Amino acid sequence: MIKKIPGGVCAPKGFRANGVHCGIRKNKEKKDLALIVSDVRCAAAGVYTTNLVKGAPILVTKAHLADGHARAVIVNSGNANTCNADGIEIAEGMCALVERFAGIPAVDVLVASTGVIGQKLSLEPIEGGMEALVKGLGDGSSAAAEAIMTTDTYKKEVSFAFEAGGKTCRIGAIAKGVGMICPNMATMLCFVTTDAAISPEMLQRALSEDVKTSFNMLSVDRDTSTNDTLCIMASGLAGNREITAAGADYNAFKRALHKVTVALCRMLAADGEGATKLLECTVKGARTRKDARIAAKAVVCSDLLKAAMFGADANWGRVLCALGYSGANLDIDKIDVDFRSKAGILPVCREGAGVEFSEEFAKKVLSEKEIDIDVRAGDGRGSATAWGCDLTYDYVKINGDYRT
Amino acid sequence: MIKKIPGGVCAPKGFRANGVHCGIRKNKEKKDLALIVSDVRCAAAGVYTTNLVKGAPILVTKAHLADGHARAVIVNSGNANTCNADGIEIAEGMCALVERFAGIPAVDVLVASTGVIGQKLSLEPIEGGMEALVKGLGDGSSAAAEAIMTTDTYKKEVSFAFEAGGKTCRIGAIAKGVGMICPNMATMLCFVTTDAAISPEMLQRALSEDVKTSFNMLSVDRDTSTNDTLCIMASGLAGNREITAAGADYNAFKRALHKVTVALCRMLAADGEGATKLLECTVKGARTRKDARIAAKAVVCSDLLKAAMFGADANWGRVLCALGYSGANLDIDKIDVDFRSKAGILPVCREGAGVEFSEEFAKKVLSEKEIDIDVRAGDGRGSATAWGCDLTYDYVKINGDYRT
Repeated sequence: MIKKIPGGVCAPKGFRANGVHCGIRKNKEKKDLALIVSDVRCAAAGVYTTNLVKGAPILVTKAHLADGHARAVIVNSGNANTCNADGIEIAEGMCALVERFAGIPAVDVLVASTGVIGQKLSLEPIEGGMEALVKGLGDGSSAAAEAIMTTDTYKKEVSFAFEAGGKTCRIGAIAKGVGMICPNMATMLCFVTTDAAISPEMLQRALSEDVKTSFNMLSVDRDTSTNDTLCIMASGLAGNREITAAGADYNAFKRALHKVTVALCRMLAADGEGATKLLECTVKGARTRKDARIAAKAVVCSDLLKAAMFGADANWGRVLCALGYSGANLDIDKIDVDFRSKAGILPVCREGAGVEFSEEFAKKVLSEKEIDIDVRAGDGRGSATAWGCDLTYDYVKINGDYRT
Repeated sequence: MIKKIPGGVCAPKGFRANGVHCGIRKNKEKKDLALIVSDVRCAAAGVYTTNLVKGAPILVTKAHLADGHARAVIVNSGNANTCNADGIEIAEGMCALVERFAGIPAVDVLVASTGVIGQKLSLEPIEGGMEALVKGLGDGSSAAAEAIMTTDTYKKEVSFAFEAGGKTCRIGAIAKGVGMICPNMATMLCFVTTDAAISPEMLQRALSEDVKTSFNMLSVDRDTSTNDTLCIMASGLAGNREITAAGADYNAFKRALHKVTVALCRMLAADGEGATKLLECTVKGARTRKDARIAAKAVVCSDLLKAAMFGADANWGRVLCALGYSGANLDIDKIDVDFRSKAGILPVCREGAGVEFSEEFAKKVLSEKEIDIDVRAGDGRGSATAWGCDLTYDYVKINGDYRT
């Protein structure tokens, strides 16, 4: 039983958060510095970008997470602190500021940055903002969620309550950016908190397993960022027996974590740069789960299909085309495709060939804000879901002059 | 010594061509049926899409090329004849029409189709257009190049003269579409003719080797078509000693073939859907040629970089980002990047970190029609070039309502 609750990253016991404007971004209306702290030392885990170019904060966060524990996360927007000669020094400096102003040892602080690559980040505005940031720590999940936004048009936070070991536990998260595969200026950042008691090892395992079916199945533009970071801290204050092995409690935790990550994936995709529509592609009946994943991801990644969805054009040939070049082991002659939305179900392809449909009804189905693309690939047991968005004029506009 | 000459596919001895409007396309101004014939039976070779979804014409062309010989190519635009239950029958029917109207055995005819997927193609308009098509055969390379266009804005043809075995040989080609990795309605088709004498085996080898550094390094939108086809016919009428093995003559032929394919790659990329700029990325000094290819291709494939180039924004972090996720084995700390055009050279990155530059000069360099992105990856011997184009509002527009 997983229940939606308010509070974001502050919903679990022991966490406080805040976000302020410190001056990294020129626009004073926009918050640019966020802090999440725990009253107690937490089990913690993280996953990061696979890009060979890695933001300096990622290297520092990895080092601080090496012992499986953390107590705080500091994040700035407006500058990615990546491809800078002094990047690591600056990222360490941000952690040291948390120690100085909040009394949390720098080695227990995780750090992340998002914004333009290759511009020097100064500690000066951050230092200037620390007093207000720490003073305002409290029920500030929303302020923190705002402070990490770049091209996001709304803040993303979510929280749930669930049962584990006979106790009610809570899990919450904030996130920003348009995907794991995403613009380098819109790095995907996600910070999850929970008061469930769970060992660092099981926390890392849960996170690493979860991303395969959540953030790794999300794409806005196939550009894997240099700064993608997903961290989780578990305070243990829910009082459940610590989860130290696989079993019913671990599964309950994983289900709750997955509710959080999938909810955020859908929010990030729907808010993809310039997007007007959320696309969700589910492939069922593939030979293996891997084939299903590759196939579903290829569909939501196709620029051609994304442009067709923007135009509410039922050009299903582009779905077949993407499935065909995806690299998944599929039997094209067995493929069925439906487009589906609140307006209804539109069958467009049966056994690899087109079926007749009303263009008028197609337009109606595809004019909704959320479009499902359902693919049946055969009789296999492999299934997977991927999330993406349409490709619009505004995507080109936003990315044609981001720096200026 | 390779010299540019006029004539396209009709430049080599023994070839005639034509293109007409037969009625597959509704717009009577647009030609939609092309034919290239040789006076003699030719050595012939082909390479095709790797998409699992393959257009019916590809299956027929492969069968007819099994013996390494051909005499004619018939091509229609306006319909891809793909994902149709009767596709093979129709493609065979097109070859049979060439036999009936031009007296060339159907088994010596290659066939290709380009247009929308999943709509039935009728032989009726094709049959109706055959008499005029065959009657008008002559110096019609341009008419044939026009007849195979879909979203292309200008026809692509090219021809060169070269020396092999002491004789002057000629090679010519027409092409259409926006890439090997390209929209399914803008299939890449390329037909090359030559009067050089060369065995079917060496012709196939030359073609298969060449595409690795030509069409396979071209991308408009990473969507590999279901109908990509590149065929070559060699009449042997230049009178050179037949090329049957590697050596000086084979190398001379390969160089000429590469001139043709690279010229067409550049034309196709420059005319990429909605494109305003040709992008050419060259990676030098990589560990291996494969690393260089993977890296160069990733750069021209990045939607983010493509949008930045549209906006003349020197956002070099996106080049680094693409190199980093490409999968190539690179040492990011050694990477130098320059943007280059007719307006000058703009160094933007040295040893993986940014260098200062004038935004005004950057704008000038990036406002040209052809932009070179020069990457030095280190001291290795691997180098490669890839071609692409910018991502624009018009790309979205063209693909948002292609079918309507």
